[in-house]
Amino acid sequence: QSNFFKIRSNKAFELFVVAVILFSALVIGAKTYDIPAHVLSIIVWLDRAITAFFFIELSIRFIGEPNKRTFFKNPWNVFDTLIVVVSVIPIQDSEMALIGRLIRIFRVLRMVSIVPELRLLLNSLIKALPQLGYVILLMFIIFYIYAAIGSSFFVEINPVLWGDISIAMLTLFRVMTFEDWTDVMYETMEIYPFSWIFYLTFIFLTTFAFLNMVIGIVVNVMEN
Amino acid sequence: QSNFFKIRSNKAFELFVVAVILFSALVIGAKTYDIPAHVLSIIVWLDRAITAFFFIELSIRFIGEPNKRTFFKNPWNVFDTLIVVVSVIPIQDSEMALIGRLIRIFRVLRMVSIVPELRLLLNSLIKALPQLGYVILLMFIIFYIYAAIGSSFFVEINPVLWGDISIAMLTLFRVMTFEDWTDVMYETMEIYPFSWIFYLTFIFLTTFAFLNMVIGIVVNVMEN
Amino acid sequence: QSNFFKIRSNKAFELFVVAVILFSALVIGAKTYDIPAHVLSIIVWLDRAITAFFFIELSIRFIGEPNKRTFFKNPWNVFDTLIVVVSVIPIQDSEMALIGRLIRIFRVLRMVSIVPELRLLLNSLIKALPQLGYVILLMFIIFYIYAAIGSSFFVEINPVLWGDISIAMLTLFRVMTFEDWTDVMYETMEIYPFSWIFYLTFIFLTTFAFLNMVIGIVVNVMEN
Amino acid sequence: QSNFFKIRSNKAFELFVVAVILFSALVIGAKTYDIPAHVLSIIVWLDRAITAFFFIELSIRFIGEPNKRTFFKNPWNVFDTLIVVVSVIPIQDSEMALIGRLIRIFRVLRMVSIVPELRLLLNSLIKALPQLGYVILLMFIIFYIYAAIGSSFFVEINPVLWGDISIAMLTLFRVMTFEDWTDVMYETMEIYPFSWIFYLTFIFLTTFAFLNMVIGIVVNVMEN
Ligand code: NA
Ligand code: NA
Repeated sequence: QSNFFKIRSNKAFELFVVAVILFSALVIGAKTYDIPAHVLSIIVWLDRAITAFFFIELSIRFIGEPNKRTFFKNPWNVFDTLIVVVSVIPIQDSEMALIGRLIRIFRVLRMVSIVPELRLLLNSLIKALPQLGYVILLMFIIFYIYAAIGSSFFVEINPVLWGDISIAMLTLFRVMTFEDWTDVMYETMEIYPFSWIFYLTFIFLTTFAFLNMVIGIVVNVMEN
Repeated sequence: QSNFFKIRSNKAFELFVVAVILFSALVIGAKTYDIPAHVLSIIVWLDRAITAFFFIELSIRFIGEPNKRTFFKNPWNVFDTLIVVVSVIPIQDSEMALIGRLIRIFRVLRMVSIVPELRLLLNSLIKALPQLGYVILLMFIIFYIYAAIGSSFFVEINPVLWGDISIAMLTLFRVMTFEDWTDVMYETMEIYPFSWIFYLTFIFLTTFAFLNMVIGIVVNVMEN
Repeated sequence: QSNFFKIRSNKAFELFVVAVILFSALVIGAKTYDIPAHVLSIIVWLDRAITAFFFIELSIRFIGEPNKRTFFKNPWNVFDTLIVVVSVIPIQDSEMALIGRLIRIFRVLRMVSIVPELRLLLNSLIKALPQLGYVILLMFIIFYIYAAIGSSFFVEINPVLWGDISIAMLTLFRVMTFEDWTDVMYETMEIYPFSWIFYLTFIFLTTFAFLNMVIGIVVNVMEN
Repeated sequence: QSNFFKIRSNKAFELFVVAVILFSALVIGAKTYDIPAHVLSIIVWLDRAITAFFFIELSIRFIGEPNKRTFFKNPWNVFDTLIVVVSVIPIQDSEMALIGRLIRIFRVLRMVSIVPELRLLLNSLIKALPQLGYVILLMFIIFYIYAAIGSSFFVEINPVLWGDISIAMLTLFRVMTFEDWTDVMYETMEIYPFSWIFYLTFIFLTTFAFLNMVIGIVVNVMEN
């Protein structure tokens, strides 16, 4: 058992497992590459061996746990169990293509089970989320105000872009990513020559709020 | 009264109010979603209840204030009063559509009244603004110089983009956001093959000034 | 004389001068706005008054300087003198339009003379430049290598984009700014299906080098 | 010999060598510029002199090394030797154009040999790479999950963009760089009106992971 966990925490073994999962995910996912049948079958078998390894490892961890209830109180244990259970299901490509895809996704998530640094990264990302909450709320207010104004004035110019408030919010998100935003602006400037003020203030406000959020997170992380 | 403020500072209540405002703003704003009439009427009533709650809360705060004059010296109290007064006005969608939109915007701003963190965020954003002032002035000088050069040389190539200095400044802002900027460049390069120097130095200068501004704010925030 | 400098360092006076310069720059620059003739003449006169003020201020500073030689050893004094000398030249719009534009640019630069914070900002930008030197050299090497490869393989696909190394470098700069870069990529992928590796590694390398430069500057500034 | 190294570490000499390499790389690379034949021959001769200088310098360093084996244990010595060896090969433009290009690239890399700061920069970049490893793995998982979903649902809408998982990943990278991403979205929204959720969550997740990586590196660098 202790030997088993020695293998598990071995960096070379971890790298090998990640390589097999990556290769298996890409090769089985793509239909266009010309991969010899015997290479494909080796990958399929290595992939199954990894799932078997994960199943055994999880079983040992579960049996080793004195209090079975606390085992599932750790969300990562629940995650691992889910991944193993779904990965065991065989993929029949011919039939339920959608279910097959879903299982494939879960198989890729086995990487999160084997690489402890990915868990740390995900933990830190989830911890950073609440900080974002208020900035997202502020962003929503900015978007809503501009969408309300935009959908009032520009609806007759282009109903596809400014039809109602939710469509206008999507258009504004497009403007925020600078994606062909001048096409949107030039169109409204033909009717309202000063509508560039609308777009420039919007870009200024959202960029400013976004920057402030980034700086806020940097400062926050550094204090801890 | 103290019970009343206990409710107000309760996080679950805050979340409920934010959810109702958000939902109400989106649902009433969009005309295309098929929402059952009774769900709509519940939302409308919840929305009114929140405005009533805000009205009562503001009244209590106003009555509790010993010196009525100092109450309106706090800009946030003025903001809250304005929001409540405008939210009380009923929306008649058939008639004044524009006024209706304006009222709708003010109703979304009730979120700023209920979430204290949004006020903190807005306060910190407003405090960061003066710092930006000088960088914006510097940016204006860079834009003006390039616009003066651009509108002198390129006006005959494309008067829509380089017609006068203010139009040229808008075109340069487009170049700064990388929005189809090569179309602008390739056009002038046909007449002036070396005009890429104009665009590349402009992009370099503005990116450099922008980066320096961001770094300046980060350093400034960290020192405090 | 001391009263004179009291005015100069007065914030309200500074703001007024900046406003007049900005307004004068924009109004005289644009030909399309309908500005009443008397407003225009007021602006022109205020603008001239400011140049006169700058001339007087510079003269006082020059006379006050005991050693005339050291006066022009300060590059900012040279800058101020140049600005004042050029601003004094009258603009005859009808004749030399190009010279007129140049003078107009110099007049905007009077803002750098009146706002001390702009000088500080420019000083700090100029100080940060040498740090950039090595990153720009590294960027050049990355661009050159990719341009050499790109112009070798893709020249027959599109000579306009990949004609020689310098044209290929401009195309790569376009790819770096994400400006319709997929159009460039899809075109070469038709002949070389794996050419996406070329673009993705290039984007990765340049983004990584750019990020490292930004982080390097942040860390450097913080240590001082 | 010590005089020789005095020259080598002289900043003016370094600048001169960098200028010749840069000029030589650009001028010989471009075919369109009209450069007088005698200027070209001077550059070619200066370029050869620099290679000769590098050859002599490397020889002195190799001879000066008491243990010849340890000399090639330093990867930079291997790099310098490779550069000198390849630079000595003459370019015959008429014949093997591809080999000629390769040699030209190696000649540009001589700059890395002469500028010690470039080596420091490359060292720090290579050291920062492993930190990126886990974020790239996480990015891959996000891309793979979205590509699996995208290629399942959108394959019939546009097989060029969503044909299989690897093509879908390239399309998602395009979306991540905001390159005409709304064209991709609008197309799928015609069949699945709510597919904007797919794109917006993808953009949010990748931007968030990217930001976190940047912040992580900043914090990491500052702790050291
Ligand atoms: Na873009
Ligand atoms: Na674009």
